[in-house]
Amino acid sequence: MRLAAFRRPHEAAGTRRTGLVLGDGAAWFVHPFPDGVDLLELLAAEPGEREALADAAAREDGLPPAEVVLLPPVYPVAMRDFLTFEAHVDGMERGHGNPGPPPEWYDAPVFLFMAPHAVTGPFDPVEMAPDTERFDFELELAAVVCRDVRNVTPTEARAAIGGYVVMNDWSARDVQGREMRLKLGPSKGKDFATTIGPWVVTADELDGCRDADGVLDLAMSVRVNGVEVGQDRSGHMGWSFEQLVSHASRASWVKAGEVLASGTCSGGSLAEAWGRSGTLSPRPLQVGDVVEMTIERLGTIRNEVVPTGATVAPVAPARSTRLEVPA
Amino acid sequence: MRLAAFRRPHEAAGTRRTGLVLGDGAAWFVHPFPDGVDLLELLAAEPGEREALADAAAREDGLPPAEVVLLPPVYPVAMRDFLTFEAHVDGMERGHGNPGPPPEWYDAPVFLFMAPHAVTGPFDPVEMAPDTERFDFELELAAVVCRDVRNVTPTEARAAIGGYVVMNDWSARDVQGREMRLKLGPSKGKDFATTIGPWVVTADELDGCRDADGVLDLAMSVRVNGVEVGQDRSGHMGWSFEQLVSHASRASWVKAGEVLASGTCSGGSLAEAWGRSGTLSPRPLQVGDVVEMTIERLGTIRNEVVPTGATVAPVAPARSTRLEVPA
Repeated sequence: MRLAAFRRPHEAAGTRRTGLVLGDGAAWFVHPFPDGVDLLELLAAEPGEREALADAAAREDGLPPAEVVLLPPVYPVAMRDFLTFEAHVDGMERGHGNPGPPPEWYDAPVFLFMAPHAVTGPFDPVEMAPDTERFDFELELAAVVCRDVRNVTPTEARAAIGGYVVMNDWSARDVQGREMRLKLGPSKGKDFATTIGPWVVTADELDGCRDADGVLDLAMSVRVNGVEVGQDRSGHMGWSFEQLVSHASRASWVKAGEVLASGTCSGGSLAEAWGRSGTLSPRPLQVGDVVEMTIERLGTIRNEVVPTGATVAPVAPARSTRLEVPA
Repeated sequence: MRLAAFRRPHEAAGTRRTGLVLGDGAAWFVHPFPDGVDLLELLAAEPGEREALADAAAREDGLPPAEVVLLPPVYPVAMRDFLTFEAHVDGMERGHGNPGPPPEWYDAPVFLFMAPHAVTGPFDPVEMAPDTERFDFELELAAVVCRDVRNVTPTEARAAIGGYVVMNDWSARDVQGREMRLKLGPSKGKDFATTIGPWVVTADELDGCRDADGVLDLAMSVRVNGVEVGQDRSGHMGWSFEQLVSHASRASWVKAGEVLASGTCSGGSLAEAWGRSGTLSPRPLQVGDVVEMTIERLGTIRNEVVPTGATVAPVAPARSTRLEVPA
């Protein structure tokens, strides 16, 4: 089942409705649920109850793409971004002059928390980040959590995953590179926009897409201005999403409304190619570029890069802190 | 004004009330506001309206410490932890074999997003993290945001800061050290507990505590089992909180209910001393240790380290991902 958050074009920003998506390719329709039906609650509902609501919605008229504005399927209460694609890590490490993934990559799936208020809709324009000449995308598969869990096994974690979305974790590589020298990861290099969508495909729809290890194996691809620039399969993840939820939940809460992302697939960013070749080819994204990401069974998100909006001046450098280092 | 979130000891977990704190030292009392008065809304209210509600609450009987369970003053909608104390960075970098802070530290205040669902109350016991033999604390000053802002100058940012709390960002240094080799910062090394409190002191209370640059200058100290092990002043921050909010808000949202933290002050962690001396002295925290943090004008948080609770097994190492590196 495909569940979308949307508003009608004439409705005020902030209006948020839930709909059932039917149809294929460009010929999709959103069949509204009654007001008050919450997308996360649908994901957590018993399958029978969800099906009954969907059957009722399907009997009503559907709205074509021109009559809906798709919104982020969820406004996350927290977002974790993992690093599960070995070949992506390999390319990035080569960009740092290293021979490949460090041994620690294989031990456990690291993650970082992302800016939860930067999520944007699946077809929204995305403003170029300030201060960057190396604007990039990241093609990822992400899971939407529908139940609060803590200390769950991978088997137990399955019931906490309501569904999946396509994610573009937009990145300013030069900004991020400077920040990461402080060893805390990126901050302003990734806090301005993360696109998710186009809708949530419920986990039960994808049970037939698992490999022998139970890892979802879906074709992933990214196009810039209509030309494919990268593709991979989610079956190349080093861990399943159930393992990622279990790891995240160890002595910590993973709550309904959280989004957990796979990390960038191999070929799913320009920076990986830059790391391998030592050149800026393909060129960084520019204003006017259209980035389109497709994951098998999930759909396509499409965003045009538009000029940076008005921003405040950068913060001043650190003042003298009268460095006093204990003997 | 000091504003606390609390419940009565006999009330169910999940009960959440707001109170005005009066009294000094150990002789403090919580004067309840009427049900439904929200702490964040009080922070965002006009001073006159807040004062009127406080005057009414002060006329009612106050509850002594034994009759309240203090809760985290806010359950953050997001948390950013900065790195603003030069001498702390110096000590940590020496632990990595570097001569001191990299030049990038001075350019702009980096931050990481923290686990927002790991916040614990000011006097709650804290479970030892799993898998660590280097359990540590981090003494920080943190600001509570009471208005949604985006692209605000430091001057404009002042109105978005409702007040301040003491924060202990508990850290598993060995876990974090392994994770940080992947360059994304810590994940499981810091996602299990962050203590904030004991209550929010409204920003207007602290206007007299600013130095010539407008930076809050408050004495900060930490004791382990009653013995002071570190102290610093918030005046050693390289940027003011207004600058931190401005920086965070540049092309990004900072929303009501967010917490922005200073990062660890110098002497505010054991790891900084370990970095300088190359030895594990003072020893890492052990079960039974009591960590007490005090910031001038804000109060004291006190937490006992208790044994790790039951946890699920660690996740399996990465499966073979059939590494396919493009030529």
